[in-house]
Amino acid sequence: MTEERIPVAVLGATGYIGQEFVRLLADHPRFDLQVLGGTARRRGSRLEDLWHLADPPPEALARRPVETVGPSALRRRGIRAIFSALPSGIAGPIESELSRQGMAVFSNAADHRMDPEIPLLIPEVNADHLGLADRRPRGRGLLVANANCSTTGLVLALAPVKELLAPRTIQVTTYQALSGAGLPGVPSLAITDNVIPYIPEEEEKIERETARILGRRRGGRIGPWPCRVLAQCARVGTREGHLLAVTVEATQRPPRAELERAWSHFDPLRAERLPTAPSPPILLRREADRPQPLRDRWAGSPRRAQGMAAVVGRIRWDPPFLRFFTLTHNAVRGGAGGSVLNAELVDRRGIELTAGRGRD
Amino acid sequence: MTEERIPVAVLGATGYIGQEFVRLLADHPRFDLQVLGGTARRRGSRLEDLWHLADPPPEALARRPVETVGPSALRRRGIRAIFSALPSGIAGPIESELSRQGMAVFSNAADHRMDPEIPLLIPEVNADHLGLADRRPRGRGLLVANANCSTTGLVLALAPVKELLAPRTIQVTTYQALSGAGLPGVPSLAITDNVIPYIPEEEEKIERETARILGRRRGGRIGPWPCRVLAQCARVGTREGHLLAVTVEATQRPPRAELERAWSHFDPLRAERLPTAPSPPILLRREADRPQPLRDRWAGSPRRAQGMAAVVGRIRWDPPFLRFFTLTHNAVRGGAGGSVLNAELVDRRGIELTAGRGRD
Amino acid sequence: MTEERIPVAVLGATGYIGQEFVRLLADHPRFDLQVLGGTARRRGSRLEDLWHLADPPPEALARRPVETVGPSALRRRGIRAIFSALPSGIAGPIESELSRQGMAVFSNAADHRMDPEIPLLIPEVNADHLGLADRRPRGRGLLVANANCSTTGLVLALAPVKELLAPRTIQVTTYQALSGAGLPGVPSLAITDNVIPYIPEEEEKIERETARILGRRRGGRIGPWPCRVLAQCARVGTREGHLLAVTVEATQRPPRAELERAWSHFDPLRAERLPTAPSPPILLRREADRPQPLRDRWAGSPRRAQGMAAVVGRIRWDPPFLRFFTLTHNAVRGGAGGSVLNAELVDRRGIELTAGRGRD
Amino acid sequence: MTEERIPVAVLGATGYIGQEFVRLLADHPRFDLQVLGGTARRRGSRLEDLWHLADPPPEALARRPVETVGPSALRRRGIRAIFSALPSGIAGPIESELSRQGMAVFSNAADHRMDPEIPLLIPEVNADHLGLADRRPRGRGLLVANANCSTTGLVLALAPVKELLAPRTIQVTTYQALSGAGLPGVPSLAITDNVIPYIPEEEEKIERETARILGRRRGGRIGPWPCRVLAQCARVGTREGHLLAVTVEATQRPPRAELERAWSHFDPLRAERLPTAPSPPILLRREADRPQPLRDRWAGSPRRAQGMAAVVGRIRWDPPFLRFFTLTHNAVRGGAGGSVLNAELVDRRGIELTAGRGRD
Repeated sequence: MTEERIPVAVLGATGYIGQEFVRLLADHPRFDLQVLGGTARRRGSRLEDLWHLADPPPEALARRPVETVGPSALRRRGIRAIFSALPSGIAGPIESELSRQGMAVFSNAADHRMDPEIPLLIPEVNADHLGLADRRPRGRGLLVANANCSTTGLVLALAPVKELLAPRTIQVTTYQALSGAGLPGVPSLAITDNVIPYIPEEEEKIERETARILGRRRGGRIGPWPCRVLAQCARVGTREGHLLAVTVEATQRPPRAELERAWSHFDPLRAERLPTAPSPPILLRREADRPQPLRDRWAGSPRRAQGMAAVVGRIRWDPPFLRFFTLTHNAVRGGAGGSVLNAELVDRRGIELTAGRGRD
Repeated sequence: MTEERIPVAVLGATGYIGQEFVRLLADHPRFDLQVLGGTARRRGSRLEDLWHLADPPPEALARRPVETVGPSALRRRGIRAIFSALPSGIAGPIESELSRQGMAVFSNAADHRMDPEIPLLIPEVNADHLGLADRRPRGRGLLVANANCSTTGLVLALAPVKELLAPRTIQVTTYQALSGAGLPGVPSLAITDNVIPYIPEEEEKIERETARILGRRRGGRIGPWPCRVLAQCARVGTREGHLLAVTVEATQRPPRAELERAWSHFDPLRAERLPTAPSPPILLRREADRPQPLRDRWAGSPRRAQGMAAVVGRIRWDPPFLRFFTLTHNAVRGGAGGSVLNAELVDRRGIELTAGRGRD
Repeated sequence: MTEERIPVAVLGATGYIGQEFVRLLADHPRFDLQVLGGTARRRGSRLEDLWHLADPPPEALARRPVETVGPSALRRRGIRAIFSALPSGIAGPIESELSRQGMAVFSNAADHRMDPEIPLLIPEVNADHLGLADRRPRGRGLLVANANCSTTGLVLALAPVKELLAPRTIQVTTYQALSGAGLPGVPSLAITDNVIPYIPEEEEKIERETARILGRRRGGRIGPWPCRVLAQCARVGTREGHLLAVTVEATQRPPRAELERAWSHFDPLRAERLPTAPSPPILLRREADRPQPLRDRWAGSPRRAQGMAAVVGRIRWDPPFLRFFTLTHNAVRGGAGGSVLNAELVDRRGIELTAGRGRD
Repeated sequence: MTEERIPVAVLGATGYIGQEFVRLLADHPRFDLQVLGGTARRRGSRLEDLWHLADPPPEALARRPVETVGPSALRRRGIRAIFSALPSGIAGPIESELSRQGMAVFSNAADHRMDPEIPLLIPEVNADHLGLADRRPRGRGLLVANANCSTTGLVLALAPVKELLAPRTIQVTTYQALSGAGLPGVPSLAITDNVIPYIPEEEEKIERETARILGRRRGGRIGPWPCRVLAQCARVGTREGHLLAVTVEATQRPPRAELERAWSHFDPLRAERLPTAPSPPILLRREADRPQPLRDRWAGSPRRAQGMAAVVGRIRWDPPFLRFFTLTHNAVRGGAGGSVLNAELVDRRGIELTAGRGRD
């Protein structure tokens, strides 16, 4: 790890996740945000004039213009890593090209999440999956995907207890926030006084991504996780924070205290002190009515990790069935924050941003 | 069935369910609503001054005063049947006394739902459970309970397919509307931009009531339904209409078309033409994003049965797992309308309102 | 008035106001809705697949396809009158061409509202302004505009009392519903837990349209109404129903009872019994907390006129200042219903749809 | 000003405003929060178990028990100043008794706001009104009221421009947040998809308090402010932040630039550097659509003063009419924060908390 901060860009900086990236990177100890990338339509506008989050934009960046800049130009300007908030569908080829040109890409898009050689990474859960990228060609930039916003919350909550339970099936039903749909997103007339029991592709993403992240790596491959995941997803009228109702059918029957201990003590990254890592990453609430989006979305400490913790509550262990609710901030932990944490892990562990260039 | 309308009262007429009773009974072909019962605090106030529903009160009753009137007075005034919207906890002993004094009680309260001799009735599903009341003592009024608002939606959706599927387990996760909590109910500061993953006693009610209603009657007893029901309940910020996400693990594998046919053709009461019975009681929606509370809460025809149908959609049959969403109006089908339909069934079938008095 | 129904089309039938037109015209006694016009992108889709209103589409039209059809084709198909829900900006030239080709146009768009020869019409208020169209060229179709959704509510409430008060200034502040912005309209992330104190062009429309509608016609011209109108407009998170807070500074001081009588007795169209005319058009509420969007948006009788009445309440007369709140359904009275009523008035009074063709 | 922190108590610590007091005083440089007062029903409960705000309780106080403690006990425990979040109606006599026993009271209740000898204080506006308390009897504690939540926003926005405009009338229409009603407050069924155009006593408070605060003190009396204030108040479904639409009819016609300068440069307390004082207290926004509750409620710097600034926007100066919108956080600037700032001013200026005791 060098002393100097790494020059980075955010692509898609005018969208909801893009602006969370900007917020999280504004004064980051390791990354130096130099480029705010946006579409030609937005080019030249100042960040503050396009700002969509409720809280104001970071002062240092508020007047920074949005730029429309391709891979070559980014490389010429010395950008070493990209945080991609590009829309799924558009992101894939651009991210591939960025990687070919030697830049590391930390992506929030779905396009590469199931590529066999791409780590689909949640640092606390499957840091060893980073090894999938070991054999990429010389000169190629590292490409790391974060998980879908709902998947992230589910996997974080399951990780500490999955060995204890050896689940046979997992049912997950979601109460997803409006910001999960980005901007302009859900029309107010569609959701006011309503719930929409459908989010395109979401259930499939949860099912396949969970299986991949919780699968075991053997060399360059991920072995399938032997548990059936069944998802039902709905949009509700909250601003931020995806709430999940989970039912696990287990094949083992550990005591309840052991489950709670597993959750409470889970903190595999503690020693690495990543700037954006919540410690602990999972908070158990014992009240009858938590977690709630309004009250738990910003969980996580230290301050830089607010919105990065998963909050688990209403645990009922009625073997073989374990039920609980879990909540994570979809745009922070389940979006921009997930990729920032991925990049911090890569940086801390000294993994090469560009293959074959030696230590970064 | 006599020609004359049966004199009835609504108790708890100032609450949310009570006012749905009033709305449904205002011009009912078989029941003549003569008394609006309320607490002493409300006594003398006119219905319109206490009206809480969004639509205006029925014109004919708007200026009718709320009365505070006990069982004996109700009997003296010739009331033959009571629709009880009394709060659970308070309802039990009053309903028992009304029955002892010979009046029939159709109750929305939870207090008597698990009493072995009380039918917990959804007419399309377990009309034969009415037989539980056959052996009540001479002079005793019939007491029939409707099911919990969420239970009603779940059971209606399951009834047509349960024989085809022979479920092993059923997972149900709810998105429950504000009106389910009655009045004053959920504070706006608790629910605005929020979801509350807890509704006291709700999960237990769903689990035990579903098992009872779907159980088989053998003489005076209900045999247990051999399927595990697991519920997780949450309050969302919609006004009306409880949405349920259901996952069934089946032990049989009928073709999908057969399941859809079972749902579509389900209409066991068609021939009886009960005034408030929706025909058909279940509507299948094939759109990607239905049912929705806003758009489907008032489903059901004829006009008097609006809000009485269950709407089923997003069916995925991936054996052994069947997933779907279902929606019912909690305060109509899952509340007042459920009891009105129960009373209509009793009336149509000529069951005695008061035991041993001969045909009513 | 002939016995046969007049063949009509709705243009912009896939938008929010367009669908209110469809709903109101579905079984209209005088108009026969034959064409649902929409953009090429929607052509061929069935109405029910594009339906946006919470209540289901009229059964008779649900499977009717949307057509993309120009003025000449409309004329060839015998369409005599057009209800235009085209977006302002696009509507102007199309409506002019329709008129040139001899079809009457009843428009919800803003484009022609200030044209000197076009009646900007609210039947109860300025029916005599229809005379502006008397001198249009032979063969030209009648073109009548309805007022902006907020203007309509303000003018209806002022009409009965303006002579009594002779206002010097009028301040109006609005609480406007989401549906006023049409579809897709306001993003949910923009308005959830928020108020937006800006609606483009709205304040200007209220100020100039009010002055025009309340102005006096002298032959072919409207004299200016000598009162300053000052508007401040904001969007709130309600679905339907624009609420207005009004303060009038009067130059006369009638007794309060006279003001109330003026409002209550106002019903200038009673004798004409237009199908969609509310009778009375203004409802006074005496409760402390009315009118409310949720409870008063559908005010108006008979049944066909639901959503057509203005509800006035919280009247405080503290001379020279009169304060009150008023509410009207923006998409019904302030939108589609306004134009339907305009057309009904034209039809009832035997005004020629096409100039110089003799009685229609 | 002594070095030691002053021992203080919050009464009504379990309500919404009470908890804002707790949040603002948790680590205050001048006040040492020693007692959380609540009703007997709450006694002994820990603060965190009664916590209602979305963000978590201050860590240092989370496990502090709520106490039920009267004036004498507070005095015996050495409490010198009370922050009163007691409900209006109940607050009056208790606050009087606290004052009689020598404790200073900074009250959020309405009870004493119009008492001639009680300063109704907004430090940036009428700090000189503190002189009203000069002649209180020896031994009597200082009693200072803050203004109603809407009044505060109106007065702050008017203060810098009132001399320039010399208003003849002021119309104010409000969009008030749910938290203004405290807890449990507005039922969700009353406000979801609704606006309620009535808040008991609110309009009267705005009118009389504005006149008092902007009036001129002459010795022990406040001369009336010669301008008519007319308010219309409504509750909307936002969580926090009261938005006001204001129309001023002026008798003078300064250039617009002068008005803007007056607002921008307004910062009468800058030199005193009170911990909770926003500097500047008024923020002008030039965007078309600001201020908004969601985005501007937490305006104010430094950090401790977040939620203490008034945000003014959509200024239109069309002489003699000035229109603008203004927003303040009702529970912070318009509630607890107002009283904390009052106390800071008293402390900084060395005004005696207890009359005749010499410098505090």
